[in-house]
Amino acid sequence: MNTAIVDALTSVLPPESVIINPDSMTGFLHDEAAWAPYGAPAAVVRPADTLEVQQVVKACIETGTALVPRGAGTGLSGGANAIDGCVIISFERMAKVLEIDHANHIARVQPGMVGDEFRAVLAEEGLWYGPDPASSPWSTIGGNVGTNAGGMCCVKYGVTADWVRELEVVTGTGEIVRLGRRTPKGVAGYDLRGLMVGSEGTLGVVTEIVVRVENLPPEPITVAGFFDSLIDAGNAVAAIRGQGIRPSALELVDRYCLQAVDEWKNMGLSADAEVVLIGRTDSPGAQGDAEAGAMLRCFDNAGATLSMRSSDAQEGDALYAARRLAYPALERLGPVLTEDICVPFTKVAEVLQECADIGERHGVLVASIAHAGDGNLHPLLITPPGDDEAEERAKAAFDEIIAAAIAAGGTVTGEHGIGLLKLDGLRQEVSPTVAEMYRAVKRALDPHGILNPGKAIPS
Amino acid sequence: MNTAIVDALTSVLPPESVIINPDSMTGFLHDEAAWAPYGAPAAVVRPADTLEVQQVVKACIETGTALVPRGAGTGLSGGANAIDGCVIISFERMAKVLEIDHANHIARVQPGMVGDEFRAVLAEEGLWYGPDPASSPWSTIGGNVGTNAGGMCCVKYGVTADWVRELEVVTGTGEIVRLGRRTPKGVAGYDLRGLMVGSEGTLGVVTEIVVRVENLPPEPITVAGFFDSLIDAGNAVAAIRGQGIRPSALELVDRYCLQAVDEWKNMGLSADAEVVLIGRTDSPGAQGDAEAGAMLRCFDNAGATLSMRSSDAQEGDALYAARRLAYPALERLGPVLTEDICVPFTKVAEVLQECADIGERHGVLVASIAHAGDGNLHPLLITPPGDDEAEERAKAAFDEIIAAAIAAGGTVTGEHGIGLLKLDGLRQEVSPTVAEMYRAVKRALDPHGILNPGKAIPS
Repeated sequence: MNTAIVDALTSVLPPESVIINPDSMTGFLHDEAAWAPYGAPAAVVRPADTLEVQQVVKACIETGTALVPRGAGTGLSGGANAIDGCVIISFERMAKVLEIDHANHIARVQPGMVGDEFRAVLAEEGLWYGPDPASSPWSTIGGNVGTNAGGMCCVKYGVTADWVRELEVVTGTGEIVRLGRRTPKGVAGYDLRGLMVGSEGTLGVVTEIVVRVENLPPEPITVAGFFDSLIDAGNAVAAIRGQGIRPSALELVDRYCLQAVDEWKNMGLSADAEVVLIGRTDSPGAQGDAEAGAMLRCFDNAGATLSMRSSDAQEGDALYAARRLAYPALERLGPVLTEDICVPFTKVAEVLQECADIGERHGVLVASIAHAGDGNLHPLLITPPGDDEAEERAKAAFDEIIAAAIAAGGTVTGEHGIGLLKLDGLRQEVSPTVAEMYRAVKRALDPHGILNPGKAIPS
Repeated sequence: MNTAIVDALTSVLPPESVIINPDSMTGFLHDEAAWAPYGAPAAVVRPADTLEVQQVVKACIETGTALVPRGAGTGLSGGANAIDGCVIISFERMAKVLEIDHANHIARVQPGMVGDEFRAVLAEEGLWYGPDPASSPWSTIGGNVGTNAGGMCCVKYGVTADWVRELEVVTGTGEIVRLGRRTPKGVAGYDLRGLMVGSEGTLGVVTEIVVRVENLPPEPITVAGFFDSLIDAGNAVAAIRGQGIRPSALELVDRYCLQAVDEWKNMGLSADAEVVLIGRTDSPGAQGDAEAGAMLRCFDNAGATLSMRSSDAQEGDALYAARRLAYPALERLGPVLTEDICVPFTKVAEVLQECADIGERHGVLVASIAHAGDGNLHPLLITPPGDDEAEERAKAAFDEIIAAAIAAGGTVTGEHGIGLLKLDGLRQEVSPTVAEMYRAVKRALDPHGILNPGKAIPS
């Protein structure tokens, strides 16, 4: 055990901020990335404020200890996984909304705030924060910043980085800084705010987040198209986006996912269709009607066997819930290895089909959900519990899907991050020179090499 | 003269790519920042392609020569100003549209492409690129990337960084890399694309730009409100934005600017009002009508002496032209020192009044145009030609306006960049630790210190 760091922590932090009992640390060891490795931490700290975070960073610098920041542990790439002898920093005690400046449409929150709780607080004032990862009932704003989380609505409203204005950060040298600014525009200095977002805790520890907020959008209209083939559905997506329509969500759910949700929740969703597209528009009035109509025409022109506009919010919400519940429903069937590739709109059909073929070739069930409107596909590789041989086949399929994404002009991760699982994929996607630029930036901002080392960029 | 670099350049580049005759270099010495210092370059290079740019960078590394990238020279902070003995790199021969991928709503351009020419090419396909700095008839996409240029429509559509997907860059070590990606989403690796945008050529030389494009928006509706005081106009802006209305432009033009445009172009614009707000909405149909109506109500409630909705596009365009022409019209009256501060919506009124007061205190005419909807104010300090004493007073007023912006929770530059003119302002805005982080990143990506040294960040 690394006693130096434990001594250092207990000498600067109050007892309630430090956990060193291994039994009490079990809930902090890893995120939800199936099969990503994790180690045994020396301690878990639960700081009460920024000054305590600073003490933790300084203690890690002094003792040469790795520091792993952690949100709710809903990550899917292993970015929050413990490293042997490390300190895990959990923000569960830094979880407040610090300020809502309604007139300037800005809110200031602590990193441990859960996404949906933040939305609920804002909604009381008629305000809204966009980024809506499927994990938002559990995941934290700080975790969302760490991974630059996306979600369903980002096809229209952008990802986390598009909403973050300013960050308070404890740097790799143990200093407290503010990066970015509260104003809508500003070009003073390098955009270190943007660099921090999505860097998975490898460049600094975020202790406070200022985001822009908007007025609550109108109730959406939901449309659905049922298709006999992935190809037809992919073509419908390309047609919608190619025409410049920007829905507030355009999600794909395949047969396996619908069935799994239905078996679990008995929602009466199962259809004979191979795949369903769920589109939403929150544009007001006639504009919303026009966009809903245009999406339905794209569904029909691409060969939908059935297309429908939800007659009320409840029906629309039921379809949408099927999308949200798909992941936990599938997890009931066995370990799920989640892919997260993003490809150009025009390649959605082709790559979806390729993922299915890859699964078939390796004897692995590949179910698919997708933020199809962004070309962000989540093939889900499912293996029977405890079947080691199937696990190996799934890993091979995982690698082939990554290669397919790159070959299609896409990326190996649309929104989940590199973490540990996608380090090989990143090496394939970017040139060695770019990887060296990442390392140069990492060395510049984390000169002691303590910030979540070994994650996010190739070492 | 620095003969080593001239020898190095002439040995690797064809003769038409290198200018060393001082008379031929006069058009490349500085941008439009009044009073920013500039030196005498050793050479101006006009590369034909990325490989020639790479040769230039390598020659600068070998000889320890500063390299200053330059667009059309319309910058207002001195970022493109020559450094003694430097190489100026001009992209006038790299000015083509390389690709329009309509289906994926992407275009690929060279940095020397002029903004409005790019728009014209896109418009032929029904496509549109958002960022519209007032300089867009002359300024280049590369220059816009260098400064992260904004403009009129960014209140709704964002700034240059929000449109740039991928960059080809020659690095500070002379290598050619691609940063970012073509897909709408992606979180693989650090966001070096975002870091490059707005870094004023200090972190790499951009040689190709991939941007997203959108469908051409509908014809806008234009509304105007005339006010007797800056305070009333500022309150109208705060009300519009505080209600969550997002116009496609919300511009402020004061009496001095209107008069200067009218004296120049005889457009019949002059009014008795102290200040005019020009709002636009390009939302379709009833939604556009609703937004236009809401803006007019905000004008009236804030005490507008007159408010009007343009009865046709021509009338709207005439008002809008007054905004575009304000800057060149004022330049006819004498040297203009352009401010570019950005403040929270709620502070627009107060800070506009403060700028006027500062001008009065220093005996300097302060005219004002503003991207008011973003809180981005451009106080224009005008002095009689050749009046050195007035110039000193204007500089003092310039510094006080910067201090006022910071005191109001704003920033010293909304969209023009730090260049040389705002280095002191940046030192006031960010902490010494943040400035050191900038320098650490600069050293990491420009280890030889050749990329536009002395600009953009405090040395």
